[in-house]
Amino acid sequence: MKTLKKIKNEVADYIQETDTLVYALGGLGEVGKNMYCIEHNDEIIIIDAGVMFPEENLLGINYVIPDFDYLVKNKEKVKALIITHGHEDHIGGIPFLLKAMDIPKIYAPKFATFLIRRKLEEHKLAKKVKIEEFNGDSSVRTKHFTVGFFSVIHSIPDAYGVYITTPNGTVISTGDFKFDLTPVSGNVDYQKMAFIGSTGVTLALSDSTNSEIEEFSLSEKKVGQQINEIMKNAKGRLIIASFASNVFRVAQILESAVANGKKVAVFGRSMENVVDVGQQLGHINIPKSSFVKAHELKKIPANELCIVCTGSQGEPMAALSRIANGTHRHIKIFPGDTVAFSSSPIPGNGKSVNKIVNSLTRAGANVLTKSVLSNLHTTGHASSEEQKLFLQLTKPEYFMPMHGENKMLKIHAKTAMEVGVKPNNIFISNNGDPLILRDRKVYRANHKIHADDIYVDGSDASGLSTAVLKDRHLLSDNGLVSVIVSIDSRNNKILCRPNILSRGFVFVKESTQMLKEAEMLVYNALRKELAGKTTFSQIKRTVRTTLEPYFIEKTERNPIIIPVILNKNTPEPKAK
Amino acid sequence: MKTLKKIKNEVADYIQETDTLVYALGGLGEVGKNMYCIEHNDEIIIIDAGVMFPEENLLGINYVIPDFDYLVKNKEKVKALIITHGHEDHIGGIPFLLKAMDIPKIYAPKFATFLIRRKLEEHKLAKKVKIEEFNGDSSVRTKHFTVGFFSVIHSIPDAYGVYITTPNGTVISTGDFKFDLTPVSGNVDYQKMAFIGSTGVTLALSDSTNSEIEEFSLSEKKVGQQINEIMKNAKGRLIIASFASNVFRVAQILESAVANGKKVAVFGRSMENVVDVGQQLGHINIPKSSFVKAHELKKIPANELCIVCTGSQGEPMAALSRIANGTHRHIKIFPGDTVAFSSSPIPGNGKSVNKIVNSLTRAGANVLTKSVLSNLHTTGHASSEEQKLFLQLTKPEYFMPMHGENKMLKIHAKTAMEVGVKPNNIFISNNGDPLILRDRKVYRANHKIHADDIYVDGSDASGLSTAVLKDRHLLSDNGLVSVIVSIDSRNNKILCRPNILSRGFVFVKESTQMLKEAEMLVYNALRKELAGKTTFSQIKRTVRTTLEPYFIEKTERNPIIIPVILNKNTPEPKAK
Repeated sequence: MKTLKKIKNEVADYIQETDTLVYALGGLGEVGKNMYCIEHNDEIIIIDAGVMFPEENLLGINYVIPDFDYLVKNKEKVKALIITHGHEDHIGGIPFLLKAMDIPKIYAPKFATFLIRRKLEEHKLAKKVKIEEFNGDSSVRTKHFTVGFFSVIHSIPDAYGVYITTPNGTVISTGDFKFDLTPVSGNVDYQKMAFIGSTGVTLALSDSTNSEIEEFSLSEKKVGQQINEIMKNAKGRLIIASFASNVFRVAQILESAVANGKKVAVFGRSMENVVDVGQQLGHINIPKSSFVKAHELKKIPANELCIVCTGSQGEPMAALSRIANGTHRHIKIFPGDTVAFSSSPIPGNGKSVNKIVNSLTRAGANVLTKSVLSNLHTTGHASSEEQKLFLQLTKPEYFMPMHGENKMLKIHAKTAMEVGVKPNNIFISNNGDPLILRDRKVYRANHKIHADDIYVDGSDASGLSTAVLKDRHLLSDNGLVSVIVSIDSRNNKILCRPNILSRGFVFVKESTQMLKEAEMLVYNALRKELAGKTTFSQIKRTVRTTLEPYFIEKTERNPIIIPVILNKNTPEPKAK
Repeated sequence: MKTLKKIKNEVADYIQETDTLVYALGGLGEVGKNMYCIEHNDEIIIIDAGVMFPEENLLGINYVIPDFDYLVKNKEKVKALIITHGHEDHIGGIPFLLKAMDIPKIYAPKFATFLIRRKLEEHKLAKKVKIEEFNGDSSVRTKHFTVGFFSVIHSIPDAYGVYITTPNGTVISTGDFKFDLTPVSGNVDYQKMAFIGSTGVTLALSDSTNSEIEEFSLSEKKVGQQINEIMKNAKGRLIIASFASNVFRVAQILESAVANGKKVAVFGRSMENVVDVGQQLGHINIPKSSFVKAHELKKIPANELCIVCTGSQGEPMAALSRIANGTHRHIKIFPGDTVAFSSSPIPGNGKSVNKIVNSLTRAGANVLTKSVLSNLHTTGHASSEEQKLFLQLTKPEYFMPMHGENKMLKIHAKTAMEVGVKPNNIFISNNGDPLILRDRKVYRANHKIHADDIYVDGSDASGLSTAVLKDRHLLSDNGLVSVIVSIDSRNNKILCRPNILSRGFVFVKESTQMLKEAEMLVYNALRKELAGKTTFSQIKRTVRTTLEPYFIEKTERNPIIIPVILNKNTPEPKAK
């Protein structure tokens, strides 16, 4: 692999009325909360509105959502929200967005439409927006844009990529995708992608999640064959844990169980949900009589029972953890049981998965994981070879890797160079960095759009939220200082003294005094700030401008300052 | 992998004037001597005219070529010979074809044109035919056909697939191809393939050579990286053996050697040839001063010398064999030498390659092969995943796997089913089996075209030829009888008594008498035959019709009878 050449993007110093802007409010430098915008003069089209699940349980936070500040300020420009598929990192932010502003119309494919409708009903927001279903033949026209769609394969039915004809060239975005040459259902519209390519693509955005994986990803059909093999050979009960978000997988497991003469029982709320939705939309096809309830389990002979459950990531509250710990109400492991993980541990979860595997093995189960049977799971995202194929099909002039942490974006950039995209035409961007399309050329803008992380605190059922500029990958040599401020925006009160946490900046023991002084400085600055009219953005700015000169003076270092605002005044959605 | 479903092709009982025929005279049921024809009423277009190198040195035969009988009989119909690329199994038959009949024009891509011109000059046939160079933008029009081209990647520059618009639908043929996403030079025209697909493909023909390989093939660029690694690390002399037919490989080896400060020496006639041609056509770019001659080798410090040679298949007369045996005039192996095989053994050659590896190791060389460094070589042919991608891009209604032994064609058929081609729309054919295109539907014809193997005997510098119906894969339970007849067609004399060899038919010891009688029967029948006017086909027919009833009577078995005619009257090309 070549080393990454220095990329020198051309910068446009100012924005013209006739320019088209492309930027992310979420999804760059991170995996999750995808939100990409395309703006021309008086129109903005939003692509996706996702949430992110934070890696650590920092501050009791449940979700991270994009900062809608810029969109709210420009809300009269927003013409449409396009949803590429129904996963939470693409639709989970919709309720928050709708609470912040009006959206004229949401366009979504069939499966996503169904999930969004459910979600909006839960939040009593169903009447706030129109949803129009699209498919590969649809197009959406606004004054400046024409948006078209091409089907792709992902780990959920009805996934699409989009292409947008703008006055300054065509932009194509893959959404989440992989090139499964033998998909379980649906297909990639290769011909349409190539056709868009042959008409000339100015800027391509492509999924970087699996940039680091070299080989073509395994076909979902091969996973089905492996599962079927296990079904045939299991002598006792079979328990399969998987991602509830992968409808194809759940369908393959259930259908294979029934084809092998087994009854099925489904455990875990999200798994029950997906089975319900999958049946309603025709993706899961097994007779009602094949399902058994928890209390009937004991009546079914061991080799005629397949239990499908959540918890493949070792989540402590999920069904599989409780089964492994012996705390599940209905299921205990007996010698002779087979437990299969149709999954692979998401980075960070390896340890907890391992713990459960050990508990299950100790209890006598024959445990099968992807590390033993590599066909037990496949990804929903394109590997670097598939990323190359996308670029070969569409031949874009400019390229911005999206959906991924900074290192993934960088590897994706290298991959693009290997297939001939000019290095200086590749943009490794952060959330809030606009690209300027001007007459089929693309420039980097020299300004930023607010694109902080907005933390949603789930332990506080009534409350938004904490805003943090996160980007940990930019954590410089100077370290990080996080400033937690609790306010009540109903009466503009500070609820308690600000709290400063630091990492990689100073030794806390030696600097207690300095940090205390810093907390006082912030407190005083915010009291002034909150006396008048202010915004969250303004509060964060005040925190930064107060502390930056102070830290530089005291330490000659300039840490990244992350203001976290805990506010007691925003409704919160049910966790899902 | 699913088992191969029973395929039931529709059969057309008769041929209409408005039908289009597609058939192979070589390349089905075998790897080599590719020749595919497309015929409509008064026009035939030929695609490729290759030779095959027989696996065993049977009867001293050097080449096998297609049977041109049908084309000669219909020579006024033949409008063009299209060449897809310059490998011998696609162009090696051209001199023989031109000796048998006139061809109005040969269309070939640049590299192939150069090689064909050389070949025809060697055979003094250059004036017998016009050659027109084509590229991806060219098209060839005849009364009924329009032929277009799309670039593909193969182990030689300028490889193309073709598509032919006929009155009964579009036919697309890959030629030899792979989908190398990061080729060394050139590219696959994905967009054009998809575009042809989106306009509707009736029948696709696709390369089956690597049907049995599952994974996407390695990119040639990765091989280059591996070679570069070896160049950097070799402490002593470096000797690299590879296929002379792979111009990209030879170019990468030479260019890497020079980039790493080495001089290069080239050994083996075909390797010297390819370096010559590669330089002339701009595919090999190193300064003249980098080459050293055999007698200068001793002056070059060991770590500044790279020797590139033939013999990667263990061929006993090739440079590497002689180096390994210590019989090479200029090169002996010393401890500290590195010998790299940038190749993999073609089935059947494993043993002889192994022998050379052992000799080299004993002599003290550090021997590197693909089994140690898997990136030392890659194929030029599409694996099953790439075959799927071709079918996904072009979405043909009907499919005929081509270029491969019967088992490869069958696996390719399965692969096609996996991506949705209807089983009954797949044709596993033999040479000489016509498909009938009629109004965008494809039928199997119920007649056969003569498509025997024609053996060219290289030990007899003046002479064609032995004709054998080979297809060993059809070798039935009844065994095989080969009848060798030597004639001189100038005076219609039988030169010696016919000779019968059998295999899997009867125990020779117990049946000497019967076989002798059979030889006599053939001799007598042929004397009668040769008294009048006859053809090779007629002679072969006579051999068969004489022996079949005799063997059935004597043994109640019906072996495959293979008449082999040795004729003393045809000029022979130089072996290459």
